[in-house]
Amino acid sequence: MDILARSKQMEAQGRDIIHMEIGEPDFPAPQPIMDAGIIALQKQQTFYTSAQGLPELRAAISEDYAERFNCTVDGQQIFITPGASGAIQLVFSYVLQERKTLMIEDPTYPCNRNVAELLNAKIEAVAVDETSNFQLDLKAVQTHWHEDVAAVLIASPSNPTGRVSDRQELLAIADFLACKGSVLIVDEIYQGLNYDNAPSSVAGMRDNIFVINSFSKYFGMTGWRIGWCVTPKAYIKSLDAIAQNTYLASSTPAQFAALAAYHEQTFDIVEQRRSIFQQRRDLICDALNDMSIKVPCIPQGAFYVYVNIADVSQDSFQFCQQLLEETGVAVTPGCDFGQYRAEQFIRLAYTSHEDRLYEGMKRLKNFIA
Amino acid sequence: MDILARSKQMEAQGRDIIHMEIGEPDFPAPQPIMDAGIIALQKQQTFYTSAQGLPELRAAISEDYAERFNCTVDGQQIFITPGASGAIQLVFSYVLQERKTLMIEDPTYPCNRNVAELLNAKIEAVAVDETSNFQLDLKAVQTHWHEDVAAVLIASPSNPTGRVSDRQELLAIADFLACKGSVLIVDEIYQGLNYDNAPSSVAGMRDNIFVINSFSKYFGMTGWRIGWCVTPKAYIKSLDAIAQNTYLASSTPAQFAALAAYHEQTFDIVEQRRSIFQQRRDLICDALNDMSIKVPCIPQGAFYVYVNIADVSQDSFQFCQQLLEETGVAVTPGCDFGQYRAEQFIRLAYTSHEDRLYEGMKRLKNFIA
Repeated sequence: MDILARSKQMEAQGRDIIHMEIGEPDFPAPQPIMDAGIIALQKQQTFYTSAQGLPELRAAISEDYAERFNCTVDGQQIFITPGASGAIQLVFSYVLQERKTLMIEDPTYPCNRNVAELLNAKIEAVAVDETSNFQLDLKAVQTHWHEDVAAVLIASPSNPTGRVSDRQELLAIADFLACKGSVLIVDEIYQGLNYDNAPSSVAGMRDNIFVINSFSKYFGMTGWRIGWCVTPKAYIKSLDAIAQNTYLASSTPAQFAALAAYHEQTFDIVEQRRSIFQQRRDLICDALNDMSIKVPCIPQGAFYVYVNIADVSQDSFQFCQQLLEETGVAVTPGCDFGQYRAEQFIRLAYTSHEDRLYEGMKRLKNFIA
Repeated sequence: MDILARSKQMEAQGRDIIHMEIGEPDFPAPQPIMDAGIIALQKQQTFYTSAQGLPELRAAISEDYAERFNCTVDGQQIFITPGASGAIQLVFSYVLQERKTLMIEDPTYPCNRNVAELLNAKIEAVAVDETSNFQLDLKAVQTHWHEDVAAVLIASPSNPTGRVSDRQELLAIADFLACKGSVLIVDEIYQGLNYDNAPSSVAGMRDNIFVINSFSKYFGMTGWRIGWCVTPKAYIKSLDAIAQNTYLASSTPAQFAALAAYHEQTFDIVEQRRSIFQQRRDLICDALNDMSIKVPCIPQGAFYVYVNIADVSQDSFQFCQQLLEETGVAVTPGCDFGQYRAEQFIRLAYTSHEDRLYEGMKRLKNFIA
């Protein structure tokens, strides 16, 4: 966050900043979603919904799981939440009550770890790198599992690596954890922003899998704060009790707006954006190749590239600071995502227009020349 | 929640239900707020704000504290949150880290207790009743304080009693707690829905007072999920770190809409509604008097009457069930708000049209005759 704050400060002072540190799509919510939100307000649809959320939105998500992902998820298994962060808190609040340890990947999105720690959980961070395509695989889970592990959290597509986990591997992990009385939480918030291969899901596929998702990334609804989780049927009542006490209900106009996410016109828009993200990914990876910077994991999803800069710096945080001060290019140091070899890595986000990314890569090339 | 679920079930079956169990105003958000929300969506203002929230909304709240409450609160001390529940979680997450006990009133709004318990806090519930006008006063706090008490939570106006705490008493409690290194959290979410006396606030008045508030009740923005907390200056950085990790940011369109809460036209609307709530309070209290049911605390705020039914029943939960089944009048049993003499009390909410309340009181009178 230091880099983000400093980049905004420099921008306010008139510097030309290339933002490659921001984890938010540069596209607004698609027009059909905006229109549905406006209609909801015109109809005064601003009273509380139930804690679980609008039945019609849960039904729409359920249908979408069947149509696009071949997953069988009952609407009753879906909780609409205030963003994916609301979903993470809901699931953590339940699963981390008895056993207290959460197993996560390192590197990973840092907030989830911090939320677990606020709930007094312990963290078992398992290092992943090029040798396993940055994937927490079955073998690693088996090696690091112990009696206090309540849950394993894996993101697919992953932030910061853009890695997509193999679905069979995830199911094998879930099956191993089922034998141990533990659960698997799969963070699918970048689902849909997939390149090269079609997106997949593990929602509803095992009785010990929770899935976290959000309308923020693929559907561009960041500031609306609306996400969801899919819970195994056995946990519906317990999660409902927690939801009623913690967040009460999610934003009602956002829920009505999100119904329009499943319109054909919306898919046309977000799929067009997806292909733009893919072009940006290629632009970045080609440029990095061109300057001999290693991309150990060609991202298959999300909008990040996690880059090994060990050949040009032994201290990625200092590298990011200097890059920003000297060239106005803002990127994120590895230490934001964990500790394992963090000083060797930086994350580039391709959430800006291609012209800006091109300019950013030019400046980076000059900087390391 | 059993009563609410059953009343909705009966309604779905065609029964005529008088809803006096619902803690949500029956008025939609005022039109200027709806209009501001629509304009925000037309302008595509749906990207993330900072975790603390829109600076202009924090400035508007700060100005309102100065104008209506004579309180000096810097905009930097204000965190916009996903409802008051987001504010409670934010403050609890910080203050219950070292010492683990939260002192609360019994009876009180139940969710706050449950949120604290999810954070592994211990609860010191202090019984309050007619003898102290249902107020947790300085003497009671002094009697029940112990080394592990991190914070005392007091709601004013209170749910379920409608009691308004004396401001000098709250400040005396804060001063006592300051000597002990503890903090006072004042839940002011019903602020503005005050009768007989003008509303007041303790925001910004001591370095160990946190204030919780919301746009839900007085401003009628329930389903938008937008509230705030006021923190002493020393805690701003710590709370910001927690906010960035837990909820990331509050709904952006809701924040833009909430700016219109401070328009003169909005105040005209909500003040008119306040006088309607006051008439309803009088209607209920008069009717209860008329049937010799005791109202030990004439509510000075919120939209609830907490009623002693010991003369007609020794089991308030059973009373509520029978009342609902036999007459279709839904009210809330005391056990929803705590344990102390809970079997003697019921809560009536006056969140329905006067005609319905009148009919409800008629049915109640016949029921107990």
